[in-house]
Amino acid sequence: MSTTAVTPSGRAFISDNMAGASPEIVRAVAAAAAGNAPPYGNDPFTDSARRKLSEIFERDVDIFPVSTGTAANCLALAALTPPWGSVLCHPDSHINNDECGAPEFFTDGAKLVTVPGDESKIDPDALGPAVRRRAGDVHSVQPSVLSISQATESGSVYTLDEIRRLGVIAKDAGLRVHMDGARFANALDHLDATPAEMTWKAGIDVLSFGATKNGAMTADAIVSFDPALATELAFRAKRAGQLASKMRFHAAQLDAYLTDDLWLGNARQANTMAARLGDGLKAIPGTELLGSPQANLLFCRLPRHTTEQLLAEGYTFYHDRWAPGIVRFVTSFTHTPDDIDQLLDAVRRHTP
Amino acid sequence: MSTTAVTPSGRAFISDNMAGASPEIVRAVAAAAAGNAPPYGNDPFTDSARRKLSEIFERDVDIFPVSTGTAANCLALAALTPPWGSVLCHPDSHINNDECGAPEFFTDGAKLVTVPGDESKIDPDALGPAVRRRAGDVHSVQPSVLSISQATESGSVYTLDEIRRLGVIAKDAGLRVHMDGARFANALDHLDATPAEMTWKAGIDVLSFGATKNGAMTADAIVSFDPALATELAFRAKRAGQLASKMRFHAAQLDAYLTDDLWLGNARQANTMAARLGDGLKAIPGTELLGSPQANLLFCRLPRHTTEQLLAEGYTFYHDRWAPGIVRFVTSFTHTPDDIDQLLDAVRRHTP
Amino acid sequence: MSTTAVTPSGRAFISDNMAGASPEIVRAVAAAAAGNAPPYGNDPFTDSARRKLSEIFERDVDIFPVSTGTAANCLALAALTPPWGSVLCHPDSHINNDECGAPEFFTDGAKLVTVPGDESKIDPDALGPAVRRRAGDVHSVQPSVLSISQATESGSVYTLDEIRRLGVIAKDAGLRVHMDGARFANALDHLDATPAEMTWKAGIDVLSFGATKNGAMTADAIVSFDPALATELAFRAKRAGQLASKMRFHAAQLDAYLTDDLWLGNARQANTMAARLGDGLKAIPGTELLGSPQANLLFCRLPRHTTEQLLAEGYTFYHDRWAPGIVRFVTSFTHTPDDIDQLLDAVRRHTP
Amino acid sequence: MSTTAVTPSGRAFISDNMAGASPEIVRAVAAAAAGNAPPYGNDPFTDSARRKLSEIFERDVDIFPVSTGTAANCLALAALTPPWGSVLCHPDSHINNDECGAPEFFTDGAKLVTVPGDESKIDPDALGPAVRRRAGDVHSVQPSVLSISQATESGSVYTLDEIRRLGVIAKDAGLRVHMDGARFANALDHLDATPAEMTWKAGIDVLSFGATKNGAMTADAIVSFDPALATELAFRAKRAGQLASKMRFHAAQLDAYLTDDLWLGNARQANTMAARLGDGLKAIPGTELLGSPQANLLFCRLPRHTTEQLLAEGYTFYHDRWAPGIVRFVTSFTHTPDDIDQLLDAVRRHTP
Repeated sequence: MSTTAVTPSGRAFISDNMAGASPEIVRAVAAAAAGNAPPYGNDPFTDSARRKLSEIFERDVDIFPVSTGTAANCLALAALTPPWGSVLCHPDSHINNDECGAPEFFTDGAKLVTVPGDESKIDPDALGPAVRRRAGDVHSVQPSVLSISQATESGSVYTLDEIRRLGVIAKDAGLRVHMDGARFANALDHLDATPAEMTWKAGIDVLSFGATKNGAMTADAIVSFDPALATELAFRAKRAGQLASKMRFHAAQLDAYLTDDLWLGNARQANTMAARLGDGLKAIPGTELLGSPQANLLFCRLPRHTTEQLLAEGYTFYHDRWAPGIVRFVTSFTHTPDDIDQLLDAVRRHTP
Repeated sequence: MSTTAVTPSGRAFISDNMAGASPEIVRAVAAAAAGNAPPYGNDPFTDSARRKLSEIFERDVDIFPVSTGTAANCLALAALTPPWGSVLCHPDSHINNDECGAPEFFTDGAKLVTVPGDESKIDPDALGPAVRRRAGDVHSVQPSVLSISQATESGSVYTLDEIRRLGVIAKDAGLRVHMDGARFANALDHLDATPAEMTWKAGIDVLSFGATKNGAMTADAIVSFDPALATELAFRAKRAGQLASKMRFHAAQLDAYLTDDLWLGNARQANTMAARLGDGLKAIPGTELLGSPQANLLFCRLPRHTTEQLLAEGYTFYHDRWAPGIVRFVTSFTHTPDDIDQLLDAVRRHTP
Repeated sequence: MSTTAVTPSGRAFISDNMAGASPEIVRAVAAAAAGNAPPYGNDPFTDSARRKLSEIFERDVDIFPVSTGTAANCLALAALTPPWGSVLCHPDSHINNDECGAPEFFTDGAKLVTVPGDESKIDPDALGPAVRRRAGDVHSVQPSVLSISQATESGSVYTLDEIRRLGVIAKDAGLRVHMDGARFANALDHLDATPAEMTWKAGIDVLSFGATKNGAMTADAIVSFDPALATELAFRAKRAGQLASKMRFHAAQLDAYLTDDLWLGNARQANTMAARLGDGLKAIPGTELLGSPQANLLFCRLPRHTTEQLLAEGYTFYHDRWAPGIVRFVTSFTHTPDDIDQLLDAVRRHTP
Repeated sequence: MSTTAVTPSGRAFISDNMAGASPEIVRAVAAAAAGNAPPYGNDPFTDSARRKLSEIFERDVDIFPVSTGTAANCLALAALTPPWGSVLCHPDSHINNDECGAPEFFTDGAKLVTVPGDESKIDPDALGPAVRRRAGDVHSVQPSVLSISQATESGSVYTLDEIRRLGVIAKDAGLRVHMDGARFANALDHLDATPAEMTWKAGIDVLSFGATKNGAMTADAIVSFDPALATELAFRAKRAGQLASKMRFHAAQLDAYLTDDLWLGNARQANTMAARLGDGLKAIPGTELLGSPQANLLFCRLPRHTTEQLLAEGYTFYHDRWAPGIVRFVTSFTHTPDDIDQLLDAVRRHTP
């Protein structure tokens, strides 16, 4: 087999899930492979990851390493809503668009109800009526969970105040709060906040803690701040096929990810590269930066000719997917300043 | 974090899922981490694994790498039975005992109906009436799938004739056939058969192809011999949280597993060690070997004193779980002749 | 117990489900109670209902009497969509708003995706892109069923041309088509069409045939025009608790409903009363009729004082539910011209 | 349509669900049809049924009228077990054999685990280990509900002591207790106990209160003795399509059923007829009564010639279904002493 990747890393801007893994994580996995260990999470790696997450979040947490973000999100939701509940989420959210009905499957049929807002962020004014919509009416699903993405699917980041305000609205109406943190570290880096501030101190009950997109291989984790949910999450994870026998190989990824601030460094690198790209684009006449990149996603408007030439040079990225002329670049921890500068140079060369 | 495993490998006989991973697989994963690659299985590693499995099975197959055997089993079953169907399986089967209702969850409520037989193998004479039980009766679940484990949960192995005979009974009644191959390679080694003979040539429609227990880390695969199931399996895998974004890291494990007969070598090693242990035990007065190990599981009866002394020496294994005095040893590719000889020596020393 | 109803029939305009049952249906149920009969639909009443429906629809149909419209809708949808499918429906549809997640429950998690349009009717121009949205994309639910309500929840009625056009758009993209006919007879009366024209000739695969709101007690029926669905519907109905042992008591209601055009007469009566009410309101200064009632639902704008006085006189109806000042009146087969004239007189008296 | 039933009532012994309805119930339904009433159970009939059941059970109960016993059983179970739970039931139970996977569907995949015992009654000695089987083990479904049938599917009746003993075993292990009372009145008549003694005083949490088989048409009810379950049951009933809009027609049946001891009289009649048949059979040489009928089901062994001749005379009943030569007769409230004597005479005439 050829292990040659199809796109040179420096030209791959489709998604951060195209990146490989951090060397530290590779080494940790290799080290974990050497000996034997108890299965199903009763191993020292899982224990260490739990302790590190508890330290990082400044309180005891329950963790459930899983193999995908979809599994993390949907198991969390299943533990937070009854089947007759609704999950309030943004129309742009991953659970609403990109999980092929997994939330409905895992929750035994709970309903996703969208709440609008600019920049893929839920508008508190829209959330207000939504959390009480037909509450107590047996003919309607019952608002049960608020799910927010941090960072969002369009690269924006909720401020701490915004999260807190949404959290209060939800909690006052008796809802639980879930955070899809597929790009948790990127948001954290942008806000310069603590993990605790961005989660349980702001009302989050359960977090999908993403690692895969930011340097790990196949390891995300459910992090629960509510001890009352631990048993249910354990059984749900098992019967969803997410209790890995050799759990240590997921846990070792998480453990290394959390060691020596690797996770924060990776996120900072990705964010910085997106900012560098944004700054560069602003200086190129004929292109238009849309918004200002807060995490590692950047949207812009490029002339058709520019897009075509970039593709011809081997760059990969989404274009004309959200609207004609709109291009999305996603940076990752693997991108270097040189990569960005070369991309900017190519844009400059090909923009009339 | 301490990466010291709790039991020295040579003394760990609880299960083959305590073992680490083969160096070849570790190296493949490390190599896959280097570059970037398209997500969701559209990568060269997944492609290579598919081609290797097609070659090994002597026909085009569809493959779906998943993170656990439970996911493989239950996605396969969900694609083979309607919700009102029944899955005929042995009372000892993993799906019946050890998956916490995952089969019922994934299939939207299909029912497992057990069919007895010696040595954890389904008895064809019992299967005959079972496949037609209340067929067409709207008040009853409808026999829809036969699921057999190869090797079985007690370490026995169906002969090719036995599989074929069960397959014919099932197919004649319109059922589909699933094989739980968590220890597929161990069974193959014992039979000295080809993968094709042990599966689709004997009537198997979908196989749970186990790799995790036999040298991989977190990678099993659904192997489908029926092209008509490919679309459904793809959607089911996605919505069950089993479509990994960085699928290459599962696929690279499978790819290395299938390279240069690593998988067969690992299985042979495990089987040989079980046989060596069995032969040794037969020669020790006061112990009793139960059956004759066909794969890498071995059951025996040991005096209580012996069991206690082995535990005191740091050996780990299940005992008194199936019946008082019954001990199970599971060997893996990591065990060496020396490990076995030392265990035998310990048994000898502690058996009065 | 007192059997005095809380509102005199003539003043009850909340919903047609407040009405009692037609005397002919009461007599049929009483007659069915006399003897014994085979259970589970193998009785002469069910057989007769099936034959009558086949005659009315001008082709052999499969029927499944059920106890509620929700059960009819959701069993139909479950037979038409895979769990990873989406059901395209209007935002105002009953399945979307008033069934508490039953569609998601029965279908094992299929997703309702709304398609807008005026007067609660799906706009063909909006349906066009919806039926192909992300088709083949494994990350997204797949458009699988178009569900339309005839008459709609706001009392409008699709023309035959409109149904046909929607049907063609759906069928061309490989979707199946369901009709929620909770007020099927009211729509039929308005269109002056044949049942066949309004259903299978226009592309409908499965119909929820409502009878309860129009003179029956507790009997709706799934009517399937696709023989290939019969077995699945039978098993799904059974495991959803909808295969009544004394099915004849549902079937006898349907049978009487379909005898001597009782169903059409009841619908005509309800529709005529709504039209009479609409005509009357148009002539009362200070009130505003919204749209023109096509079936037996009528929306209007009344002064607050008028609404309050009507309520004080014992009239019951929904008001201020859709918007302030908006009143909904629903007529049924039990209303008489006198009832309507008295209501109009009351409106006139209380409108300044 | 011909309303001629296929078997004269007096010769129908297949099941009590072949019987029609009591005249009192027919009259109540007809009376309920006359006026209008609020939908969805907010009607005086439902209120009256609730009050009557509260009186009969000597405490406030929550009731949910449903259209079938399957719906009653499975909604009750869904409210009592998590999806990863197991429901302990007898191998002969209706939920295990005759509901086509409905329990698994309604509970989102909970598992039925059978516990043996003579005469279709669960053996306390077998229940003891079952309630704690693998408790706390995440790989296994968790014992969550004990479900017992009273009377059982073979016509036996648990004594009060037996129910209490099973209840204590279940409750001590943290399980909830459900009673399938499809033939509740028949059991009550046999025991000469109070409804309270046979249910909540003996540990029952939720009862499926059967009425359909004993004189009603299409009405059973969930009776919950645990107020904490009311909200969940209401939402589950709605989303399962069991919240009838014209609920009064179910409730009126229940209300009449409970008036003037109609339900007890009907059950006594059915039981007495079974006893009369049993006594008669005992006196006929060549036949063998199996057990002694406690409710309204009777099993016996008849010569093949006898069976054939009875069938030829138009009698209907199950035979050769449980074992060759075994015949089951089910009596209902519609049978008269004359019917029984004629059947006995026929048996006598045709038994050599």
